Amino acid sequence: MQEKDKNKLEEKFKPILENSSHVSWKPRTMLYPLPAVMISCGENEDDYNIITVSWVGTICSNPPMCYISIRPERHSYEIIKRTKEFVINLSNEDLAEATDWCGVKSGKDFNKFKEMKLTHQKGKMVDAPIIMESPLCIECKVKEIISLGSHDMFIAEVVNIQANAQYIDKESGIFDFQKANLITNSHGRYYKLGEEIGKFGWSLKKK
Amino acid sequence: MQEKDKNKLEEKFKPILENSSHVSWKPRTMLYPLPAVMISCGENEDDYNIITVSWVGTICSNPPMCYISIRPERHSYEIIKRTKEFVINLSNEDLAEATDWCGVKSGKDFNKFKEMKLTHQKGKMVDAPIIMESPLCIECKVKEIISLGSHDMFIAEVVNIQANAQYIDKESGIFDFQKANLITNSHGRYYKLGEEIGKFGWSLKKK
Repeated sequence: MQEKDKNKLEEKFKPILENSSHVSWKPRTMLYPLPAVMISCGENEDDYNIITVSWVGTICSNPPMCYISIRPERHSYEIIKRTKEFVINLSNEDLAEATDWCGVKSGKDFNKFKEMKLTHQKGKMVDAPIIMESPLCIECKVKEIISLGSHDMFIAEVVNIQANAQYIDKESGIFDFQKANLITNSHGRYYKLGEEIGKFGWSLKKK
Repeated sequence: MQEKDKNKLEEKFKPILENSSHVSWKPRTMLYPLPAVMISCGENEDDYNIITVSWVGTICSNPPMCYISIRPERHSYEIIKRTKEFVINLSNEDLAEATDWCGVKSGKDFNKFKEMKLTHQKGKMVDAPIIMESPLCIECKVKEIISLGSHDMFIAEVVNIQANAQYIDKESGIFDFQKANLITNSHGRYYKLGEEIGKFGWSLKKK
């Protein structure tokens, strides 16, 4: 990076450093913002369920692998442990209310698809259902379950993606993440994405 | 949920369903938006390094545990494998440029702290440095490394949090995530957080 750009960074960071000190806190979960998703599971209509999880992520690019972490007392836990399958359904503005509701209520008490007026369709590579209203559904097969404490981590391979055609750019064939209006979960609050700051590699292109 | 609220959901979802169909794609990494973070590592100034990773998340609440996944060819991989420590530094608008740059460049070629004019300080519970300009730093100790393919997953326990005092509300003592201006990474683009849609449990409070 050029000296003048470095000097600009130094100037920017100076007041940040001067006005701040760090305070140590006991360990807690503070990593945000996170993807807002609904996990669908079950092998037939009778036991289809939806659980909203915060602990979800990608763990490998090739093969594509994801994880979710769930408390053993949750209704979906036994279903996913038995069927070894789940679907990660990305959430957007239209689905925000359902995403919240499915995180608060239990599948022991409600048929969440019916309550939230969501539509299920059997996955292509898994028996677990996708949520048709979701812009993008990630079908996963569980490879390993690791007990960590309050949560068990389900390590899974992505076996298929179902993308809603209305968000696929007709010319490029690329999924338009911006058009999909994905939302994010930051410490229990749901947000729309705001202004774009830059695209991967933009820091190199600055003059 | 009340019938009239369910009917509202049904009306909302009707056009979404009618105008859409899902297209199957081969497995790929499509889970977004993700936290924008810089990982700092190393046990002394000579080998301090920063790596920007996309594959990062919380995997357990109690004990608090996180993971990062890194390609073995990355410069930080050997450092973290050897020292069994790293720090997750949350990124915000001020740090966006450095976050991008640290994801593109290698610690083999640059001293990233110096290049980005960032300030290191030894962690409280780890020798790895925190990035002083970050609003919140999560000190982690590696418990297990799992080889998955292109990436190895470093499973770690959170051993300390360092929160920048300027974002801690003086009355409540709570870390103000909104004030910290965290940013998110959605498929290679950095975004500010936008409008708040609701807070955990808001779907129950609606009339």
